[in-house]
Amino acid sequence: MSDSPTRALASFVTQSTYDSIPGDVQFEAKRAILNYLGCALGGSIEPALDKAIEVFLPFSGPAHASVLGRQEMFDEMNAALLNGVGSHVHEYDDTLPQNYIHPSVPVGSALFAYASAHPVSGRDFVHAFILGFEVESRIGDAVYPAHYDAGWHITSTTGVFGAAAAIGKLLGLSTEQMVWAFGLAATQAAGIREMFGSMAKSFQPGRAAQNGLTAARLAAVDFTAGERALEGPRGFAPVTASHYDLNRITDGLGVEFALRANAYKPYACGLVVHPTIDGCSQIRERDRPDPMQIGSIELKVAPLVLDLCNKRELKRALQSKYSIFHAAAIGLVRGKGGLQEFTEEAVADPVLSRLRDRVQVSGDDKVTEDQVDIKVTMADGTVHALFVEQSLGNIHRHLSNDQLDEKFRDQAVLALPKAQVEKLIADCWMIDELGDAGEIARGSRPSADAGRAAGDAQ
Amino acid sequence: MSDSPTRALASFVTQSTYDSIPGDVQFEAKRAILNYLGCALGGSIEPALDKAIEVFLPFSGPAHASVLGRQEMFDEMNAALLNGVGSHVHEYDDTLPQNYIHPSVPVGSALFAYASAHPVSGRDFVHAFILGFEVESRIGDAVYPAHYDAGWHITSTTGVFGAAAAIGKLLGLSTEQMVWAFGLAATQAAGIREMFGSMAKSFQPGRAAQNGLTAARLAAVDFTAGERALEGPRGFAPVTASHYDLNRITDGLGVEFALRANAYKPYACGLVVHPTIDGCSQIRERDRPDPMQIGSIELKVAPLVLDLCNKRELKRALQSKYSIFHAAAIGLVRGKGGLQEFTEEAVADPVLSRLRDRVQVSGDDKVTEDQVDIKVTMADGTVHALFVEQSLGNIHRHLSNDQLDEKFRDQAVLALPKAQVEKLIADCWMIDELGDAGEIARGSRPSADAGRAAGDAQ
Repeated sequence: MSDSPTRALASFVTQSTYDSIPGDVQFEAKRAILNYLGCALGGSIEPALDKAIEVFLPFSGPAHASVLGRQEMFDEMNAALLNGVGSHVHEYDDTLPQNYIHPSVPVGSALFAYASAHPVSGRDFVHAFILGFEVESRIGDAVYPAHYDAGWHITSTTGVFGAAAAIGKLLGLSTEQMVWAFGLAATQAAGIREMFGSMAKSFQPGRAAQNGLTAARLAAVDFTAGERALEGPRGFAPVTASHYDLNRITDGLGVEFALRANAYKPYACGLVVHPTIDGCSQIRERDRPDPMQIGSIELKVAPLVLDLCNKRELKRALQSKYSIFHAAAIGLVRGKGGLQEFTEEAVADPVLSRLRDRVQVSGDDKVTEDQVDIKVTMADGTVHALFVEQSLGNIHRHLSNDQLDEKFRDQAVLALPKAQVEKLIADCWMIDELGDAGEIARGSRPSADAGRAAGDAQ
Repeated sequence: MSDSPTRALASFVTQSTYDSIPGDVQFEAKRAILNYLGCALGGSIEPALDKAIEVFLPFSGPAHASVLGRQEMFDEMNAALLNGVGSHVHEYDDTLPQNYIHPSVPVGSALFAYASAHPVSGRDFVHAFILGFEVESRIGDAVYPAHYDAGWHITSTTGVFGAAAAIGKLLGLSTEQMVWAFGLAATQAAGIREMFGSMAKSFQPGRAAQNGLTAARLAAVDFTAGERALEGPRGFAPVTASHYDLNRITDGLGVEFALRANAYKPYACGLVVHPTIDGCSQIRERDRPDPMQIGSIELKVAPLVLDLCNKRELKRALQSKYSIFHAAAIGLVRGKGGLQEFTEEAVADPVLSRLRDRVQVSGDDKVTEDQVDIKVTMADGTVHALFVEQSLGNIHRHLSNDQLDEKFRDQAVLALPKAQVEKLIADCWMIDELGDAGEIARGSRPSADAGRAAGDAQ
């Protein structure tokens, strides 16, 4: 059966041992988990999550599972979904530059939900995380870019496989069961880019986490599925991508790991506008232009940026995370792209609004998705120009461990008191030594009298 | 906004009144509901449903909702999923010949789950059913055949919209909310044909029912979604179909109804093998060939049949429902294609197995999917030939109301005592007069002491 990439990938997951994973990959997994948890805590106070909780709470089974950063308890399937909404809603989570997957959300959301309800050693948790991450990334590599270009939200469509692999590993599935789990994942793979800029975007990786967990649980009781989920003529790759390369699923399996290329966002928005925020922030720092005297802003960007982020008129705060116009404005005016730069208040800010209207943007095949060419012309004719060669946060300008801690704090204090935040940071760095990784999920619950803890947190 | 098919369809659903629906469509809805319920009861004893219940029962919320034909109670979201598994597992449900959607399963599964837990008048139930049915069929017409040919299980991918429309109507969504519900449906649309012949196949329309219900409930609390779910550049139609015609969504809306073309299966298997069962059964009746003296069976079929049903070696009973070889064998040997013809016993039957090996099948562009050209050659050289012009159960050889009652009985007695079966048949024919349609769902529950009621039923 060596001709089946589906089976090869399933066998890799079921046969893998923690000790066979290189140490640098194990360490990068902890960085990814820390970054994931910070995003989940930052997003835990968002209206999208409030609304999702309002809908699903009446339909939750016995409340054994935690939703990260929330008081309410759920069954693990609903918790997986809700973790996904919260951890993705700020668009602040990690990214694989080679395929635009935000890999930790589907896998981490399912794992933390499961581990909050069942004992899972820290090593097993990290191991399952690495395997789930690897599975979704490899499937993404196989179908990218055709799959993404067609309009699929690749984070959710591949994330469902990652969640299935991670939970399936913890459940001890046989290889045959893992093949079925991948089949059940394939047949639930969904999520389209038309939803970007709405609450439905963060729902997608949440549903993927839940669907992957469901796939693994169904496979565990021998609920059967087609056995060529990825490569069959009506399988995931042929159905969702006009071009694909199944060798990407198996080449270097167990030797090369996607976690090594994982990137952590310095800005709380779509990745492709990061170079623009970065560059405009640098101009602000270097030339200190008065925003009210800026006459025009010309951007040359990679063509994909226009495809994704060509929205000048913003009706909702979420849309600002996918606006190249807003990105330039916040860089020049505020010099950063934290959570506060993508609120209703920021969208309504008249200074930002004025600058959005002065941005002219054109696509240029010679500009990569990590670059931007910026030309700011002042009312008096002065020009401030800058070319961003490699955006902050990319693989060559990586966030340090300290920067990850700081990013975690900035988000987590929205939901939890400082002492609880520091405890969680420490726990994430030593998660592989914890007897029960579920402690982290349970430890992210606000205390009953804290309410929304912003006050306590200052 | 008349340029948006998504909004036009949403507005149609929210503005529709029951009295505006033609009487023949209202009546056909009752036939479809009767046929749906019979299938759900027949499938309620299947291992696929047992396994799904085993998985989801521990995660069910407060048990207000019935699963058709089962003792166990669930929350409405899980009940919608499980109704879908049970009603589709026998492949005995209805079909729209123009797009191969099995339309009643996603819509009926969500509606019966919802109505079992909340008061819904019979008229409102039938009205919501008609609207959901219409929505999924129109979306299917818009993307068929490219969408189906690509490998999508069109029943689940369009069924999620139908379920969202039906439940959204009952929840009283505004048009804007219905637009969001369609967005949330679009971004959960999933299901691939690679799963055919496994338990995952019946899971798909079940998940679609649950996902559509979820979409409607999220939209009801203003959980936002992209507003061009169908026609946007990254919307359902462009992403999932290389060719599509959005006019099919709006042409004749409110005047022409898909229910008028709905077909009810006389055989418990994939539709495209029906002509072969029909024709072989006619040869058996007409010529009485001794199965053991049959030397060869030559079939000329529509090319799609080979694409879907070209499986000679059967490992699982479910695969027999998609085998043109098995179809010919059961027609010639048993003269029918009821539930008993697709069991493990039937697959292992040496007479059937021998005949499967003697079938030669070729695709012919001149043969429609409703036809087959059959040539049976006996060991002594005698030839029995027959051409099926229009298969039993198609729109021109429709099952009568009495035949639908009989089909219902054949299935329902597997789960319920005769008296309960007859009561349900009567209730379905008068569902539009019931004060609470949920009575039917609750009335399909086996009594506590009945167990699996096959004994009582004889």
